[in-house]
Amino acid sequence: MGPIGVFDSGVGGITVLKALKASLPDENFLYLGDTARLPYGTKSPKTILRYLLQNIEFLMAHKVKAIVVACNSASSVLSEAPDFGIPVYGVINPGARCAYEHSKTRRIGILGTRTTVNSHVYVNALKALNEHVFTIQRACPLLVPLVEEGWEHKDVTRTIIESYVSDLHSDKIDTLILGCTHYPVLKPMFQAVLGSEVGLIDSADAIASELLKDMESGFVSSRPEKGGRVDVLATDDGVFFHGIASKLMSPFKIDSWAIADLRGPVSPNEN
Amino acid sequence: MGPIGVFDSGVGGITVLKALKASLPDENFLYLGDTARLPYGTKSPKTILRYLLQNIEFLMAHKVKAIVVACNSASSVLSEAPDFGIPVYGVINPGARCAYEHSKTRRIGILGTRTTVNSHVYVNALKALNEHVFTIQRACPLLVPLVEEGWEHKDVTRTIIESYVSDLHSDKIDTLILGCTHYPVLKPMFQAVLGSEVGLIDSADAIASELLKDMESGFVSSRPEKGGRVDVLATDDGVFFHGIASKLMSPFKIDSWAIADLRGPVSPNEN
Repeated sequence: MGPIGVFDSGVGGITVLKALKASLPDENFLYLGDTARLPYGTKSPKTILRYLLQNIEFLMAHKVKAIVVACNSASSVLSEAPDFGIPVYGVINPGARCAYEHSKTRRIGILGTRTTVNSHVYVNALKALNEHVFTIQRACPLLVPLVEEGWEHKDVTRTIIESYVSDLHSDKIDTLILGCTHYPVLKPMFQAVLGSEVGLIDSADAIASELLKDMESGFVSSRPEKGGRVDVLATDDGVFFHGIASKLMSPFKIDSWAIADLRGPVSPNEN
Repeated sequence: MGPIGVFDSGVGGITVLKALKASLPDENFLYLGDTARLPYGTKSPKTILRYLLQNIEFLMAHKVKAIVVACNSASSVLSEAPDFGIPVYGVINPGARCAYEHSKTRRIGILGTRTTVNSHVYVNALKALNEHVFTIQRACPLLVPLVEEGWEHKDVTRTIIESYVSDLHSDKIDTLILGCTHYPVLKPMFQAVLGSEVGLIDSADAIASELLKDMESGFVSSRPEKGGRVDVLATDDGVFFHGIASKLMSPFKIDSWAIADLRGPVSPNEN
């Protein structure tokens, strides 16, 4: 059986890839970062759906047995996509379900990029599980650049996180969704700021445990021919991408890098 | 005579609009924020050139008498554009010239977004003036979100700026180009950190003084029929844009807001 495909608009989805690799060390993974067309968040749903379909077709041409959409914007239009004949996992529902199962008080906070927060995708997913759930959201535009700078242990990051969570803290949430693929890197700092009484849910772990369950049940085959490879493709060349991706993936290694040519009707450079 | 057109991919160019308004209070201004297609920085030069031409055509259809391209990425492809029959000002050359004229030691620092720094546009513009100029660059990805959060007076911003300029400081620069349209908001904090011996050059002031000179010489007409209006258009609706734009423009007021339909061959939502 082929590899597990993972894609994101950029580098953030590598945290999901890392969580998958940690849970499923013998599987082969093929990661696609659509860096030529990032960010997806500012595009219309129609355009994001077109990109989603192109990326899924590209990964299926590489014989993947399942696909993880490690991108909030692309996950939010997944329900509009046709059936592909292989399992395709979005990042939002596993995160929302995991948070709902964890929360005792049904008071759940959500942090994300400005686009994710404005789209209300996590709020809607939680309300679909139980309309009486209390939710509070906060956009955290500084956290992605802080992670990309590699400043996750700096005092300044702690100060910024304290500022971002102060409202949520006074609203007495017991569970916090880290609703952006970059945020798992900041988990230790979040836990230090919030204390152990607030449970942190990151989509990377949530999606990994969902895929693991589906493999145990046989829904997804768990028999790689020769396993353990991590191959990474990007639609645009960028030294910066390599550096951050390697760092986010650590201690696991990336076995190969290449530029992907989606060969779709729209060239990635013509977006 | 018509208004002066100003455009940027987003909200940052409002700092340029503010500097122009301060220098030329009786002129009419028409600002276009191409928010549906931002950011330009990650697009190919060919695509950015296409957007530049569309935006210029759009502003010319609104009878502008001159255009200020308040966007680093779009300014960097301006030399490839045809002659439009009206003056079109980019943001890079005025900034570089102003820095070169200010510097006594010929040791000039440049701060910008990762895209601007990687493109070397300011370094190339300075080297074209004098190949012996010493330059040092630093990408500052946290500064745009800090400005957009409205945190320009917070201690955390000072800490981050100190971290960004520490290398430049030890390289004994006497002039620093704030090479991003968001940065003028942080000028007081930069001056406090760097001290008065380092001159701060922002493109907003540089471009305003260039336009003022061209008006005094008669190259651009300075006779508005009924002056002082500031009209703002954006290609995508966004409450966030209004809030930040009003704040960046303060104490000057924006007289009207509207959504622009570029009606070009490519819809902004189809990028």
